[in-house]
Amino acid sequence: MKKYKKEDLESYTLGTTLTLELLNKKVNLVKRVYIHSKQEKNETLDKILNICNKNKIEVIYSDKIINTLSEKENCYVIGVFEKYESKLDYSKNHIVLVNPSNMGNLGTIIRSAVGFGILNIAIIKPAVDLFSPKVIRSSMGAIFNVNIEYFDDFNAYLKEKRNCYPFMLKATTSLSKVIIKEPYSLIFGPEASGLDDSYLNVGCPLIIRHNNTIDSLNLDNAVSIALYEFTKNDFK
Amino acid sequence: MKKYKKEDLESYTLGTTLTLELLNKKVNLVKRVYIHSKQEKNETLDKILNICNKNKIEVIYSDKIINTLSEKENCYVIGVFEKYESKLDYSKNHIVLVNPSNMGNLGTIIRSAVGFGILNIAIIKPAVDLFSPKVIRSSMGAIFNVNIEYFDDFNAYLKEKRNCYPFMLKATTSLSKVIIKEPYSLIFGPEASGLDDSYLNVGCPLIIRHNNTIDSLNLDNAVSIALYEFTKNDFK
Repeated sequence: MKKYKKEDLESYTLGTTLTLELLNKKVNLVKRVYIHSKQEKNETLDKILNICNKNKIEVIYSDKIINTLSEKENCYVIGVFEKYESKLDYSKNHIVLVNPSNMGNLGTIIRSAVGFGILNIAIIKPAVDLFSPKVIRSSMGAIFNVNIEYFDDFNAYLKEKRNCYPFMLKATTSLSKVIIKEPYSLIFGPEASGLDDSYLNVGCPLIIRHNNTIDSLNLDNAVSIALYEFTKNDFK
Repeated sequence: MKKYKKEDLESYTLGTTLTLELLNKKVNLVKRVYIHSKQEKNETLDKILNICNKNKIEVIYSDKIINTLSEKENCYVIGVFEKYESKLDYSKNHIVLVNPSNMGNLGTIIRSAVGFGILNIAIIKPAVDLFSPKVIRSSMGAIFNVNIEYFDDFNAYLKEKRNCYPFMLKATTSLSKVIIKEPYSLIFGPEASGLDDSYLNVGCPLIIRHNNTIDSLNLDNAVSIALYEFTKNDFK
């Protein structure tokens, strides 16, 4: 077992909490669990061992493998799983991320999306690798709750009629004035440059207004604000 | 010149954009600017050199120092400045961060705060070091626009009457139903645990409602959502 690379067919969760989340949500895909000799006995570990036992998942005690995979962190449990594909549900609301490049951002966006009940995320390539252990960790395991599908370009994604809301600094309608039509797609551009001007012709472009002392909001903050406004009536 | 440590009297900006922002906002505190031989000539560099020239700030060409300070990144310009203290303006709205521990989060929060026009941030100790180059970088330079003051505890901060809004999962009032009274203090707890129950007795506790598939929102996302809701009428 070596450190994760994008072309690998397997990836892994780092730590007890994440590994338990993996086992709870995707037990059929879990290949084995590694445990370090320094891992203390606790309730989370008991749950992990129980699920492994019930589902005949191999548990391997190996300090060496954990040290190789976990780098500097105090992480003593690792769950290895088979990477999977998922398809978007086009009857539901979506987030569409065009060319996201930051792993931490992607994980945090998935976490917020799940929190606000959006369980379908489209990613337009080129883009960061969804199954990188760093994305999984920054999602706090929320990744195992969502459908995520990659597309070669935006047109490949837009195969059915959708209510599109691209978020752009050149938009003229404020997010706070939006008229929401479902099922919607909230569309966000790459971290450094945002969506290009072609998206001004897609659906109803929106702007999260702020002053111009800053160039833009951080991507995960912009997505979270949009999610909050679009789902506000579901969480009164 | 060595890698930054918390007890140092100086800190530094990594990269041309950040260094230009430092020179534009805090020129009197800039001690010197280092430039790497690989830095290409461009408009931002010209501006940096002009400001240094006008203000008699020393410019030192040194690959060795840049390599020491900048680690693995492609960063060829560094601006060194004297660390400074700033006092909160109690007539204005504030963000209060109780025991923040993540440098990236703090930087991103400062960036969003500046974007939404909140220029006074209280930090309750123990807390991450504001002047760490990592915080400065993740703020994208927004840090040079705000007053940030550290306090030993929350009572030391609360020396004048304020309209306090602590954000907590145990609150019963939704953010979307808030009645805003100024000047306000938006109060957020540490990343891992949130505010303790004592804050239920402070002002008007608020909750950003989401489903319970996730434990909580990431701190910078929660702060950004709160900032958006509280300043919405300023940015129509």
